Amino acid sequence: MSGQSKRTRGSDRTQTVHGLLRRYFPILAWGREYSSRTLLNDLIVAAIVTVMLIPQSLAYALLAGLPAQVGLYASMAPLVIYAVFGTSRTLAVGPVAVSSLMTAAAAETIAAQGSPEYLGAAIALALISGLLLLVMGLLRLGFLANFLSHPVISGFITASAIQIAASQCAPLLGIRADGHSFLDVFVSLARNLGETHPYTAAIGLASLVFLFWVRHSLKPLLRGLGVGERAADILAKAGPAAAIVTTTSVVWGFGLAAHGVRIVGAVPQGLPRLALPPLDPALWTKMLVPALLISIVGYVESISVALTLAAKRRQRVDPDQELVALGMANVGAAVSGGFPVTGGFARSVVNFEAGAETPAAGAFTAAGIALATLFLTPLLYFLPNATLAATIIVAVLSLVDIGALKRTWAYSKADFAAMAATILATWAEGVEAGLVVGVGLAIFLHLYASSRPHIAVVGQLPGTAHFRNVARHTVVTDPEILSLRVDESLYFPNARFIEEFIHEAVAANSAIRHVILECPAVNVIDASALESLETINRRLKDGGIRFHLSEVKGPIMDRLKGTHFLEALTGKVHLSQFDAVSSINAELARRTLQARRL
Amino acid sequence: MSGQSKRTRGSDRTQTVHGLLRRYFPILAWGREYSSRTLLNDLIVAAIVTVMLIPQSLAYALLAGLPAQVGLYASMAPLVIYAVFGTSRTLAVGPVAVSSLMTAAAAETIAAQGSPEYLGAAIALALISGLLLLVMGLLRLGFLANFLSHPVISGFITASAIQIAASQCAPLLGIRADGHSFLDVFVSLARNLGETHPYTAAIGLASLVFLFWVRHSLKPLLRGLGVGERAADILAKAGPAAAIVTTTSVVWGFGLAAHGVRIVGAVPQGLPRLALPPLDPALWTKMLVPALLISIVGYVESISVALTLAAKRRQRVDPDQELVALGMANVGAAVSGGFPVTGGFARSVVNFEAGAETPAAGAFTAAGIALATLFLTPLLYFLPNATLAATIIVAVLSLVDIGALKRTWAYSKADFAAMAATILATWAEGVEAGLVVGVGLAIFLHLYASSRPHIAVVGQLPGTAHFRNVARHTVVTDPEILSLRVDESLYFPNARFIEEFIHEAVAANSAIRHVILECPAVNVIDASALESLETINRRLKDGGIRFHLSEVKGPIMDRLKGTHFLEALTGKVHLSQFDAVSSINAELARRTLQARRL
Repeated sequence: MSGQSKRTRGSDRTQTVHGLLRRYFPILAWGREYSSRTLLNDLIVAAIVTVMLIPQSLAYALLAGLPAQVGLYASMAPLVIYAVFGTSRTLAVGPVAVSSLMTAAAAETIAAQGSPEYLGAAIALALISGLLLLVMGLLRLGFLANFLSHPVISGFITASAIQIAASQCAPLLGIRADGHSFLDVFVSLARNLGETHPYTAAIGLASLVFLFWVRHSLKPLLRGLGVGERAADILAKAGPAAAIVTTTSVVWGFGLAAHGVRIVGAVPQGLPRLALPPLDPALWTKMLVPALLISIVGYVESISVALTLAAKRRQRVDPDQELVALGMANVGAAVSGGFPVTGGFARSVVNFEAGAETPAAGAFTAAGIALATLFLTPLLYFLPNATLAATIIVAVLSLVDIGALKRTWAYSKADFAAMAATILATWAEGVEAGLVVGVGLAIFLHLYASSRPHIAVVGQLPGTAHFRNVARHTVVTDPEILSLRVDESLYFPNARFIEEFIHEAVAANSAIRHVILECPAVNVIDASALESLETINRRLKDGGIRFHLSEVKGPIMDRLKGTHFLEALTGKVHLSQFDAVSSINAELARRTLQARRL
Repeated sequence: MSGQSKRTRGSDRTQTVHGLLRRYFPILAWGREYSSRTLLNDLIVAAIVTVMLIPQSLAYALLAGLPAQVGLYASMAPLVIYAVFGTSRTLAVGPVAVSSLMTAAAAETIAAQGSPEYLGAAIALALISGLLLLVMGLLRLGFLANFLSHPVISGFITASAIQIAASQCAPLLGIRADGHSFLDVFVSLARNLGETHPYTAAIGLASLVFLFWVRHSLKPLLRGLGVGERAADILAKAGPAAAIVTTTSVVWGFGLAAHGVRIVGAVPQGLPRLALPPLDPALWTKMLVPALLISIVGYVESISVALTLAAKRRQRVDPDQELVALGMANVGAAVSGGFPVTGGFARSVVNFEAGAETPAAGAFTAAGIALATLFLTPLLYFLPNATLAATIIVAVLSLVDIGALKRTWAYSKADFAAMAATILATWAEGVEAGLVVGVGLAIFLHLYASSRPHIAVVGQLPGTAHFRNVARHTVVTDPEILSLRVDESLYFPNARFIEEFIHEAVAANSAIRHVILECPAVNVIDASALESLETINRRLKDGGIRFHLSEVKGPIMDRLKGTHFLEALTGKVHLSQFDAVSSINAELARRTLQARRL
């Protein structure tokens, strides 16, 4: 952080107990202003969000290969903890689709779905992920999330969403699909399509059509019927709950479970017991990388949602404290038997649009889910898995962003390559491989691009003090002077390129006596580039050529002053390219004059 | 490649048979002008270099854990092949210290020193390394070498040189040293110091003192005695040969081999037979990464020597063709029973200073070594290993660059960290770990640094059109306008930082109605940054703030024109920061006026 932000943050960092408390417990700030009006408002919001969250929580638990109640557990403690530590007023944390998929992918490497070891691995993932986020927050390592470039994260989410949607076709149609990678699952689905279970498929497809209709057409319809904007919005979000109530009643009423429709079955009633996940070092070692990836992907989604919502009301979100809050929320999820959670887009938007004013709304939502866990789970017995599958498919398909692929292709082929590689690797080798390949390729392509910066040979625009690319403008050049403008910072990926460029340019033209490097776009000169500049200077000197710099920025000049380079430089550092050329010409003229006199 | 270089190279790329032949066979260029005068000169140079190379070749073979003759084999075919394919007139290829150490480190993972499998692995390394270099050259992948930043390569060479010198203390003193890592060897040496073999140590230390004296004091002494500059230089380089002749005679004359002085022993007479190394897929898979690292480290050393020497005579070196030439040289080394080679600094400088004019000098040197292999090997029987150890120690200690550590520390802590990590990892875990850690850390620190660019809040210098940092200058600012200058390209490592910076700055000041981002130092806007700019624009719009850009470079503007961003932008793109502020003020004034009129 620098500039204004550094000063603003400086005050937060005041190392008084009071300052630290306010920094790490944002609840102390908003809690003080909490009024009975806010309380009533937050309670209403909580009721709305609870209705939306129950089906989502169950569905994502099944997506993660876990018992349904684990989804409810993961939607209680994290919400309360986030209310204490979070800086966003409206973020709603809980299980989300992509991290549920990542949880399943990681836990499957430990044990088979349904085993206690599988559940233990999922809970351990939440704990490790929580601790990693906490450490990142306390050490201010949030920048690690930057390594996930937009195209990589966008490609990853699109690939994951399509993979999730495909995998959910199995419960939706009542068929089996095997395999870990998307390709395996896809082939297996296509092969088993003939075994579709008619009742299950009827329920699943009806739910799917209903949910798509709710999402796309219910709100305009309600508005047309004279329902208010906000009420229409909220009613439309209750679609999944309505689908669950209806299909559960149908399965119960017609006894479809006896006809082979798979149902959720007995969900244990009551709140989770507090416990630690297995502290097996071998398990932790294996879960470390998946937990790191889950943390970073979750954080990127969460902070982006938080900033977007905060901006609408000009509120502040502290990215480092958000890491702490998400870390604590995940630790809370783990000790209360849940799996990894993060700030989700859909649930946060509902929370925001329903009018949440403080994180207390989240805590009340947790209370709502606790009540449901205590009293409503018997009602979920006949809930068909196909309905939950339909809920997931509708939710994740909204994450698929084909437009982003097109836009990226049009804007930058390198970014598109990273995006496409992420998608293909995710499908072929799984979520971890997808992220690693994408991040690796993005870094590689970035270094590759900066390894061959744009270097223009420049000349003077006649009658002005301006210098422009000789290839684009009609300019005046001096055969003895080679003026080069490099449009990139000078650092290790391109240091040798610049050496070779100048070597080549000078070897190709024996008239050259001066080389001037114009540096207005050079923001950094690292140790590699400094050494290259020294080498260029020495080699040019060996060839009887003087080396100059021009338009070097202040901070770079400050650093160069401490080095041997400026002493060794055969030419000078000029304030502007015009000064450089003028002073060289003046010197040449003076020498010619002296030579004539002698 | 761009600008002038692109045009210059364009002609090389002419896809005629003639052009291709000249490109890939530089011998066709210099061979045509070859005269009897050049021939005589090159023959004299070859005689001088041969005398220097024989001890070096033997010593580096022993350093690589190989039989002495392998060093001679590696100094024949590669020199001839480089003469055909190389673009440097004076580069001398052969075994060098660092790649010999790397060869030993890799081959030791396959088999014990002295076994045929160990030799096979070393030869396979040369072949794989050669093929990799060839592919890199043909596909123009030389930029891969850029990933080795100067501090990393410098740290690596210093660490390797110290490690080599330490390991050679064992043969120098006639003691044993075990272990793979430097730390193991060091501990083992210290423990066995009591078992020093007196005769061996006497020969070793005497050679060491003599060679140091030759290197530092012989040349001034000879010059004082009236010997010419060049002759003094050449005589000083013959030091190792003199040490070998003397100590071999002493060992033979006094029968010291019977007293336990270890000698080279029987070296097979005659030229190597052409053969392929073992084509075992498991061996190749294991040798792939070491071969890649040997190739890149070798290439970096070689191209740097070639460019430095070429610059002294304003000759040209083509970095891509150098990859081809080194690749062919290594393939040649492999099929003639040698181990990895590269362009060495010491031998190339001797070649240059002795007056080599064409690569033919190298070919004649190869002939000289061939003659030695045919007729002189019996004379090497009594050559003590201690003398070769002394030769290696003196040679490698000149590679240790403690000054570079100090300079890097003073100039850049990040670069120093990469350097120190390379050294420590090389010593603790070996050469491959050292390079991987160094490169990884350098890339990480680079991304870290660019993840938090300098962003200045700027204001207008009173009475001028210039805008400067508010923290450094007395400037005029408008409370409704936030002007920011970002001193870095906008791309994924910093895209989110800029989002957060603007979010923070705007949330901290509710008076702001316009944000202007001044972009004179922005050389690139990648897809991540574009998305961040769109997000910033959308969030500012939600908060009732307009977003402007100023001083956007032409090529960036060209790319932005194809995107949705410019349409969505709530403000404008202004030519200069002054234009931006003026036009916003003009609009504000017009509105105020309109409001008053109404």
